[in-house]
Amino acid sequence: MNKGFLCIGLDPDIKRIPDRFLKDINPLWEFNKYIIDETIEYAKAYKPNIAFYEAYGSNGLEALKKTIEYVKKIDKNITVILDAKRGDIGNTASFYAVSIFEDFKADGTTLSPYMGFDSIEPFLKYKDKYIFILGLTSNPSNKDFQFIRTEDGKFLYEKVIDKVIEWNKKYYNGIGLVIGATNKEISELKNKLKGIPLLIPGIGTQKGEIDILKGILSDNVFINVARDIIYSNSPKTKAKFYFDELNRLNNLI
Amino acid sequence: MNKGFLCIGLDPDIKRIPDRFLKDINPLWEFNKYIIDETIEYAKAYKPNIAFYEAYGSNGLEALKKTIEYVKKIDKNITVILDAKRGDIGNTASFYAVSIFEDFKADGTTLSPYMGFDSIEPFLKYKDKYIFILGLTSNPSNKDFQFIRTEDGKFLYEKVIDKVIEWNKKYYNGIGLVIGATNKEISELKNKLKGIPLLIPGIGTQKGEIDILKGILSDNVFINVARDIIYSNSPKTKAKFYFDELNRLNNLI
Repeated sequence: MNKGFLCIGLDPDIKRIPDRFLKDINPLWEFNKYIIDETIEYAKAYKPNIAFYEAYGSNGLEALKKTIEYVKKIDKNITVILDAKRGDIGNTASFYAVSIFEDFKADGTTLSPYMGFDSIEPFLKYKDKYIFILGLTSNPSNKDFQFIRTEDGKFLYEKVIDKVIEWNKKYYNGIGLVIGATNKEISELKNKLKGIPLLIPGIGTQKGEIDILKGILSDNVFINVARDIIYSNSPKTKAKFYFDELNRLNNLI
Repeated sequence: MNKGFLCIGLDPDIKRIPDRFLKDINPLWEFNKYIIDETIEYAKAYKPNIAFYEAYGSNGLEALKKTIEYVKKIDKNITVILDAKRGDIGNTASFYAVSIFEDFKADGTTLSPYMGFDSIEPFLKYKDKYIFILGLTSNPSNKDFQFIRTEDGKFLYEKVIDKVIEWNKKYYNGIGLVIGATNKEISELKNKLKGIPLLIPGIGTQKGEIDILKGILSDNVFINVARDIIYSNSPKTKAKFYFDELNRLNNLI
């Protein structure tokens, strides 16, 4: 079965979820369950961002755990990426890896590159997992550091991308990149990124245009849409829209 | 009262804490309580790293919460820095800020610079808090990216430090840097960093030498020691040793 390319961001904000969930003991979990039930036939992956759960303390983290279990119970082939953007020295990073891969049992996560390889290494022993390292992010302030030009003429984000591709070849093929769809540079990166797992946020509320993704879709590419689906009046209709659009783009190639 | 410069890292690893704590319902909390009781007269700050608590799920996070409350109950003037190295787009970052400053009630945190200003901004509305942004870290792989030379001849870490100092002047004086004591470059940075809050890890197990800190100590500088104190046979003796050493260094100036 072709499950397309759509990853749905499960980032529930209590101020934005419909009132009917607020009377529940755990509104975040009930809301997520509703979103999953509505969208699972169009979802290749779900991506909860852990910040939205941490903000609600133990209740939030319980919602996160139940959400991941629920997705895997319905369809164990759906990938769950726990977006955490961690990055710390090796001894500490190994504890983050335990939390994300052993406690929450996610299939993948996101990491920050700034501290370098030893902050990534503890995650590599989980060879059945995806690791997406921030390359070129989708936010406006990516300009501050990622676009610093280095002495050989490349931007910093290009140096990070090159290094991650090197790690992918050297260690295992689950090592990939986060590349925001809000960047026009994504077009020039397509050839270089072939075969590398990609998590691509920025479509939808962040205004990334879907046509920029032409030629980049493949089995280990995840196009994330969060707010534009989960806060829609009909998450199902919106998920189907993105699912169809991505398949249309893929057939154009 | 001079509380010196010592920050004690509360990074409990269940595999390393003494057996006598393992029979407790929450060994991490009981161990931390012991460490705090032993060391508080020498501590200007405590720095729990959240990874060590996340790895033990809700039990771990409960230990973290109790630990922070306990420190503040004994002495509300002691600074608690919740080391989390977060960094995400603005909408998400605001949820991390809620978790760290409102739920855990920490007095400060650490952030990763890679995504730029909008990933830092949500933390700035808490103007009574410290924000330490990773500048030059203490781990060996800081070489991978932080020492990339940029087109104007500066290393990346210098560009990050310059930008953080700019933010400190522009926004508020709680914005500071993490600078690892394992880097000899710290000596050259002293003048530039005057008046900027600093969190300096790397002394102790990571082999940073204490004498490198000469001339950098001031009221908003925190020298972190974790494993070398908390896993010592006498945390009190070790804490006093570092407390005295740092005061000795400060008096040399």
